[in-house]
Amino acid sequence: MNLSIIRYILGHVLRIEGILMMLPCIVGLLYQETEGFSYFMIAILTFVFGLLLKRKKPENHIFYLKEGCAATALSWILMSFFGCLPFILTGEIPSFTNAMFETVSGFTTTGSSILGDVEALSHASLFWRSFTHWIGGMGVLVFLLAVVPLSGGSNMNLMKAESPGPSVGKLVPKVRSTAGILYKIYFALTLIQIILLLLGKMPAFDAIVTSFGTAGTGGFGIKNDSMASYSPYIQWVVTIFMFLFGVNFNFYYLILFRQIRKAFSMEEVKYYCLIVIGAIAFIFVNILPLYATTGESLRHAAFQVSTIITTTGFATTDFNLWPETCRFVLVLLMFVGACAGSTGGGIKVSRIMLFFKSFVREFHAYAHPKSIKKVTMDKKPVDSEMLRTTSVYLAAFLFIFIISVFALSFEGKDFITNFTAVAATLNNIGPGLELVGPTQNFAHFSTFSKWVLAFDMLAGRLELFPLLLLFYPELWKEAFTSHISFKKRKCSI
Amino acid sequence: MNLSIIRYILGHVLRIEGILMMLPCIVGLLYQETEGFSYFMIAILTFVFGLLLKRKKPENHIFYLKEGCAATALSWILMSFFGCLPFILTGEIPSFTNAMFETVSGFTTTGSSILGDVEALSHASLFWRSFTHWIGGMGVLVFLLAVVPLSGGSNMNLMKAESPGPSVGKLVPKVRSTAGILYKIYFALTLIQIILLLLGKMPAFDAIVTSFGTAGTGGFGIKNDSMASYSPYIQWVVTIFMFLFGVNFNFYYLILFRQIRKAFSMEEVKYYCLIVIGAIAFIFVNILPLYATTGESLRHAAFQVSTIITTTGFATTDFNLWPETCRFVLVLLMFVGACAGSTGGGIKVSRIMLFFKSFVREFHAYAHPKSIKKVTMDKKPVDSEMLRTTSVYLAAFLFIFIISVFALSFEGKDFITNFTAVAATLNNIGPGLELVGPTQNFAHFSTFSKWVLAFDMLAGRLELFPLLLLFYPELWKEAFTSHISFKKRKCSI
Repeated sequence: MNLSIIRYILGHVLRIEGILMMLPCIVGLLYQETEGFSYFMIAILTFVFGLLLKRKKPENHIFYLKEGCAATALSWILMSFFGCLPFILTGEIPSFTNAMFETVSGFTTTGSSILGDVEALSHASLFWRSFTHWIGGMGVLVFLLAVVPLSGGSNMNLMKAESPGPSVGKLVPKVRSTAGILYKIYFALTLIQIILLLLGKMPAFDAIVTSFGTAGTGGFGIKNDSMASYSPYIQWVVTIFMFLFGVNFNFYYLILFRQIRKAFSMEEVKYYCLIVIGAIAFIFVNILPLYATTGESLRHAAFQVSTIITTTGFATTDFNLWPETCRFVLVLLMFVGACAGSTGGGIKVSRIMLFFKSFVREFHAYAHPKSIKKVTMDKKPVDSEMLRTTSVYLAAFLFIFIISVFALSFEGKDFITNFTAVAATLNNIGPGLELVGPTQNFAHFSTFSKWVLAFDMLAGRLELFPLLLLFYPELWKEAFTSHISFKKRKCSI
Repeated sequence: MNLSIIRYILGHVLRIEGILMMLPCIVGLLYQETEGFSYFMIAILTFVFGLLLKRKKPENHIFYLKEGCAATALSWILMSFFGCLPFILTGEIPSFTNAMFETVSGFTTTGSSILGDVEALSHASLFWRSFTHWIGGMGVLVFLLAVVPLSGGSNMNLMKAESPGPSVGKLVPKVRSTAGILYKIYFALTLIQIILLLLGKMPAFDAIVTSFGTAGTGGFGIKNDSMASYSPYIQWVVTIFMFLFGVNFNFYYLILFRQIRKAFSMEEVKYYCLIVIGAIAFIFVNILPLYATTGESLRHAAFQVSTIITTTGFATTDFNLWPETCRFVLVLLMFVGACAGSTGGGIKVSRIMLFFKSFVREFHAYAHPKSIKKVTMDKKPVDSEMLRTTSVYLAAFLFIFIISVFALSFEGKDFITNFTAVAATLNNIGPGLELVGPTQNFAHFSTFSKWVLAFDMLAGRLELFPLLLLFYPELWKEAFTSHISFKKRKCSI
């Protein structure tokens, strides 16, 4: 284990966070809020801490997947720690647990909140809250790769650890260029959304932070009723952009480079569209009697399906009051999640497809014992290594899910609340059902439960393994023994 | 697809069922009930139908796993169909759907009932209901293998399709002897339980049918309050025997052949014991305030844990009223299930172990990318083929689970009822929570939902694939085309 490179990367990450934190500070200045000063102080602190960590260059630049995972997990934890300090300093979220919950929820693009009254927050804090979504959506380390020159080939291991989905497709041969292109697409889409929202006469501040929340598929709102009070036009724009940010970014890359045909033949995107359309149609029919006009039913159905499948978590209506079948479809979509390589969370459409395909292959093997059918994706065979990792992922997912619901059950809350609270955090969605429904918040949980849910948010965003790996003793044992043996070798020379 | 051998096997199965149905007929005679006559008539009908089916010997005796699966699934469906006729004829369960639900629940050792007042049934029907548990527990085809001479090597495929757990260990080189030994152990254990219950002054009829329900880990009771009104001694005997019937039968085989050390080093049995003891201890502590004495709390905790993990489904108390943590632990145990190679249902301890081990191996692979660690069971490496099938099993399980809960949600019942109704039937347990809790029954479901749940019971007992395979069109397409091409070939000669 190369501990020095991890330290070096952490330093870089904090330095960047310090710089990014100057933005809410500027917002504070514009609105003449004293809270801006708190952001300024923490920004400096974070920047300096980052500088100190990265001062000494690492002895060697080579790092494997394990270093990539550890660096990613620790980055996200440290980032959340420094990111929550302004909330405490401004006194807007005085409790450390609550501030940490809110910040983790922000960076992981979950959007679960402990705040009952969001509108009481300063503009600086509202901006920072939504900005963490935007940063977390594409990934901090992907950003790092795009702007900081790290050593060559092993960059892939950082990107692999942070990117959602079963595999990272290298778009262009160099990881740095890939990361840069991804961020450009991300930036451009966000900008288009801001413009479209402004055209709908949304106030500029609202348009910017709403777009941050949409782009990162986060879901923090700045109104207590989330998106309910905005005009139908604005709600439709948000619906469409939530959907767009749930699409695999490779799709946009292919379009950008005029490989339109290849883009539209991406299997995952096709199935994603089918699921979205199917779910909207189903819910639309079932909620028709609940709303005044057909248009309103369609708008609510489309909005809620997009917000849940992309794991954003905005709301225009209280779907907790919908019929049981619709609630169940939404719970299902929570687990399906968006496409791999998007900013959305959940299990991901491509993983679900792989499960389904292995399942069909099994039947084939029963019916034709002598012929071997390969599982394919986009007409290319999927190697058994990836199938194996995908199924281990499912087992790990269920394992964390169960342990978490069990941990929450000690509070004596009802099963649906516990079940959907874990589903909403582990899949990075935001709201669940019952006591954590769209009109509720997470403040009523105990400190212990909040940490469990914060863990789930991180585990979900980093796709389990990088975070879980931190708890694998052998990793550290080996890290320290190799460190010691390295020193020993040095001494003996 | 060798259709003629399937027909031949089905004939054998029905012939055996006809003979077995004479037992409730004798019970009816003893108690001078007219219902016995209905059993007599259906027994004759079933026997004759079986004879007709098996009259013509199959053209060739070779059959593969697919024929094994299809024969097994069809046997269970046909058996349930003929098995439910007496209930309709006696007028005790006049509706076909209800009678079929009850019989499928019996054969699959589930124990979910649509009867509100069990005590109103005749002795003949009470006996038949519990006897179906006993038949279904060890498997009808395993019985067939033990008593009917079928062609040699390919017997394994029948046993594989019907036996629970990830793999069938051949205890002795010949499948027939294995099946015989299993049935002898099964019979002996049942007999010991009957004797112990008689010593506790349980009426003979009650002792016999209770033992049938325990041995098959079924759970149909003959009292409206299940086991609650029996003495603590009787409840303890049932607790212990439920536990014993959840143990992998290879354990008893090894003990029988004096390989004590090997028996006690079986990993699955060890973990099964650990889970049971852990769950009892946890629930015991949590329900202490609910009961008058420590002994009573311990008895209820031990009984409910054993009844749920072995998927039996008897009850001594209404655990639906227990604290949320205890309810959650019970729901978890529903999924864990008993050991492979026992009469219990659920996912099985050994599968859970395989998931967990693949999961740990994954960490190992991250931490030591160059070394490959094999997943082992009982110190032997598990081949990747089995790991793959196990994970496909999990995916298929989740898939059926989700579709079923979705299908039930149309009735508008609450999520916990739907969720635990599916959990209780797919895992062959019996009672769930809320509207399907231990003091409730399944009568309130619609006809559609009852068929969904009956399907789940069969799918659970046959471990998904044999039943699902029936719905795989290619299997039949190929079966009929090969049949036609065979005829064509004959004509052209």
